[in-house]
Amino acid sequence: MSSSIVTVRTIADLRGHVTGWKRDGESVGVVPTMGALHAGHLALVEAAKQRCDRVIVTLFVNPKQFERADDLAAYPRTEEADRQQLAPYGPDVLYAPTGETMYPQSFATTISVGGVSEGLCGAHRPGHFDGVATVVTKLFMQTQADVAFFGEKDYQQLQVIRRMTSDLDIPVEIVGVPTVREADGLALSSRNAYLTAAERGVAPALNRALCRVAEGLVEGQPASKLTADAIEEIRGAGFRDVDYVEVREAGTLRPIERLEGEARVLGAAWLGKARLIDNVPAFPRAAAGGNG
Amino acid sequence: MSSSIVTVRTIADLRGHVTGWKRDGESVGVVPTMGALHAGHLALVEAAKQRCDRVIVTLFVNPKQFERADDLAAYPRTEEADRQQLAPYGPDVLYAPTGETMYPQSFATTISVGGVSEGLCGAHRPGHFDGVATVVTKLFMQTQADVAFFGEKDYQQLQVIRRMTSDLDIPVEIVGVPTVREADGLALSSRNAYLTAAERGVAPALNRALCRVAEGLVEGQPASKLTADAIEEIRGAGFRDVDYVEVREAGTLRPIERLEGEARVLGAAWLGKARLIDNVPAFPRAAAGGNG
Repeated sequence: MSSSIVTVRTIADLRGHVTGWKRDGESVGVVPTMGALHAGHLALVEAAKQRCDRVIVTLFVNPKQFERADDLAAYPRTEEADRQQLAPYGPDVLYAPTGETMYPQSFATTISVGGVSEGLCGAHRPGHFDGVATVVTKLFMQTQADVAFFGEKDYQQLQVIRRMTSDLDIPVEIVGVPTVREADGLALSSRNAYLTAAERGVAPALNRALCRVAEGLVEGQPASKLTADAIEEIRGAGFRDVDYVEVREAGTLRPIERLEGEARVLGAAWLGKARLIDNVPAFPRAAAGGNG
Repeated sequence: MSSSIVTVRTIADLRGHVTGWKRDGESVGVVPTMGALHAGHLALVEAAKQRCDRVIVTLFVNPKQFERADDLAAYPRTEEADRQQLAPYGPDVLYAPTGETMYPQSFATTISVGGVSEGLCGAHRPGHFDGVATVVTKLFMQTQADVAFFGEKDYQQLQVIRRMTSDLDIPVEIVGVPTVREADGLALSSRNAYLTAAERGVAPALNRALCRVAEGLVEGQPASKLTADAIEEIRGAGFRDVDYVEVREAGTLRPIERLEGEARVLGAAWLGKARLIDNVPAFPRAAAGGNG
């Protein structure tokens, strides 16, 4: 079976396709990726195909969002396998620009988002969310997409992109798609490929600990106690370091101690060579005696 | 004579107009202003009318590009007079959003442009060009304009906007329009309103000094000597302080000492309560013995 996806590498080629679609009144969805595709990405493509007449998958390993050169160098690059995986899902275009197309030598612009980008991964990966905000804006401008699809697995990233898109009045709708997980709860991630078999056995402990925090919040326990226990639990399971486990308001990412509205429990921890991140929602129990 | 320009205050109203125009295949031009219009702004509107089927003039005194609260407070606001002045030029829409529309309380995004924003006014007005880049991107996204018109009077601003638009792949063409001057050479500026009659007599000395630098460059003299003389000349004429007089490469704004390609001579100086800026081009003499 050979792939029928058109691969384009330049902005001019990309705009050629998009201009034709828009002239015909077709809606355009974009799924930004860094490649090394897994079922989590494919769920984004499926969501895009359901919502939009045309779907562009972008593939660009964005150097500006890597704060460590070794992490950038090690990041898996599997374009041919990515194309094979995408084929059955039928996106219209795979847009895989070169580094020179995205960042010519004269490039000098940075987009920074305050508030939601602070703390959590923002505290551990300096410049990371600037790099994300900048490349995502460029991809929005290049694709002129009407709708863009991002995984909830990178939950803070999703909120940074929502904030930026709203602040800059970019005419694109942001859709968050729930995290796809292995049967044992491990969130799918391109970085899971770094895990040894033994580490793979340990990995679901991160998700288990976050779920336990969410349950404790629903039962009325305070976040500070629950997250301290979770960090101990994750270390005890065999992770070598925990960057954070925190409870935040779902939309603004402001720290909270008690569950009042919708919250998110977020964690990041190191297992061997991999830095794994995950998050789960926590909703207050419906108040007794409410309507319905 | 009453004005027939439609004034809109919300993004939704603005997009209602633009969507209709785009559906009909009409090109859209935008002239961003902070109001207090003078013949320099009207030249931008004229240029836009010549190039585009539809023209939007925006009027927003952008707080993010004022680094001093007193300067923001004193900036002239003359919307009704602006509308009267615009009427004969026939723009389709005057877009005058409120502060809350542009910067709701949750606003948290900043666009920074390196390189061209450094030195010159960037060195004297910290944060100014971030504020310009951020608001101009918002106006581009709100208006969805195909072409945008800016005066060369704010030459560094023009280069910052060109760089940012190119870096972010915003699908808008940037057109620079030559500075409009009084008969004695003074560049038109909303800030000229701050000058007393006596200061108004002194003001053209800035332009005269910059022109003399340009002439000296063409004759082969070094920039450092010429700009030092110009600063002395401007002070001697009665300006109370000179922020800078510099010679830069026209496109990149890199400092240069000798005229090789197209250059720009830029200056900023204080006269009473007004900080006046100006700039003039300098082109090398056509080489003897060339073609033609």
